[in-house]
Amino acid sequence: MLRMLRKVCFFKALTPREINQILAIARLRRYKTGAAVFMKEDIGSHFFIVKCGRIKIFTAIGAEKKKTFAYLKKGDFFGEMSLLGGKVRSASAEAVEDSELLVISKKNFKALIRQSPDFTLKLLYTLADRLNRSDKEIESMLFHNILGRLAGAIMALAGNKSAALKTAGQTNPLRMSLNQNELAEYMGTTRVPVCRAINTLKRSGVIDYKRGELTVLDMDKLRSISGNSAVRTPRSPVHAHA
Amino acid sequence: MLRMLRKVCFFKALTPREINQILAIARLRRYKTGAAVFMKEDIGSHFFIVKCGRIKIFTAIGAEKKKTFAYLKKGDFFGEMSLLGGKVRSASAEAVEDSELLVISKKNFKALIRQSPDFTLKLLYTLADRLNRSDKEIESMLFHNILGRLAGAIMALAGNKSAALKTAGQTNPLRMSLNQNELAEYMGTTRVPVCRAINTLKRSGVIDYKRGELTVLDMDKLRSISGNSAVRTPRSPVHAHA
Repeated sequence: MLRMLRKVCFFKALTPREINQILAIARLRRYKTGAAVFMKEDIGSHFFIVKCGRIKIFTAIGAEKKKTFAYLKKGDFFGEMSLLGGKVRSASAEAVEDSELLVISKKNFKALIRQSPDFTLKLLYTLADRLNRSDKEIESMLFHNILGRLAGAIMALAGNKSAALKTAGQTNPLRMSLNQNELAEYMGTTRVPVCRAINTLKRSGVIDYKRGELTVLDMDKLRSISGNSAVRTPRSPVHAHA
Repeated sequence: MLRMLRKVCFFKALTPREINQILAIARLRRYKTGAAVFMKEDIGSHFFIVKCGRIKIFTAIGAEKKKTFAYLKKGDFFGEMSLLGGKVRSASAEAVEDSELLVISKKNFKALIRQSPDFTLKLLYTLADRLNRSDKEIESMLFHNILGRLAGAIMALAGNKSAALKTAGQTNPLRMSLNQNELAEYMGTTRVPVCRAINTLKRSGVIDYKRGELTVLDMDKLRSISGNSAVRTPRSPVHAHA
């Protein structure tokens, strides 16, 4: 287990002693595809590290309005926010693939951030990165049209799909399976405008999209349309929280 | 100085030893009203704690499009984000009153987060809170109309004005000087829709507004219109970053 975890991004920054400290206090829990990890407004009682699988962090108002904040994969963590002050979960978490999570109680999490400086620094850097992304998204929503936001969403999601891409040995051009609902929920909008924007990007030769397979043909142009060249680089993990 | 700082929110969580550690490495810098502390896209080289005055964190595209992220007052800090990974400033900072800042170099900041666990925890809690607010704002922009967003903005700004309010001994009803441009920039929009929304809130008896003085007449109703009862309580500091 220690050896496996050393390969995972989150644990790379930690000493073997710190990893063992985490393993000693974590329980392993399995979630089937579609299972809820927690719901928005729940009292936060645990911190989670993804051992394998894929977790979606999202919020919903009614059945219609949905917004995906992030997809999390091996080595990503979530659930810290309501343990650091907020108390109730600010978003919901759901397994979108069969997943295994390392689960740490609030009490043990609080002890960990007091005792393990590298763990705390890792949290700090990740939160700063997530805040940066969150603010960029606010800026994008205010200042960019739907085309720019779609370009930003594709680039952000490309980061999450990179593991699958590497396994398949396809690093160039960037290709990923991605349905229009997934994209719409990531942008917090509905399918129709997203569908129109996809067709515009297709016509201008920036992407190709058929049968749920999206291929980025011109990454420079996509980045320039997103208007966010410094931040939403592909292959970097997307922000998450709750 | 130590005694003065012990009264400031940011330093309350720290031991006298840690405060002295900060004072030993900080320089005091004065900024006149309107002076830039740093500009968006600058390479981040310093961390700042507000000793007195008021600092606006904002972003702008062209001359027309502006978005205020936060107003910071005594005891608030900013500038950590580009020292924790991002490198370039994600927003601009400007003094909106004559201000004094404690300024810490990147090198000393990095040493501080390694050596001072309470300082690092304080940073961690604040970033989690700011991320929560930032995500709530995204949700609000997607799911709420301009009335809900105005209500949220008034409640968030009320937190920043609380010091002035307390000095004046006016804690109830909540009253603050606030011009329509300030509100529009906080919401990242223009003056005309904000003006309309203010009139709607006035007509329904939630606020009063004349000559740049805004009075909250019905805080419960304002909170309910903001659709964000758990988060945007007044008197809590608004999120900031850069």
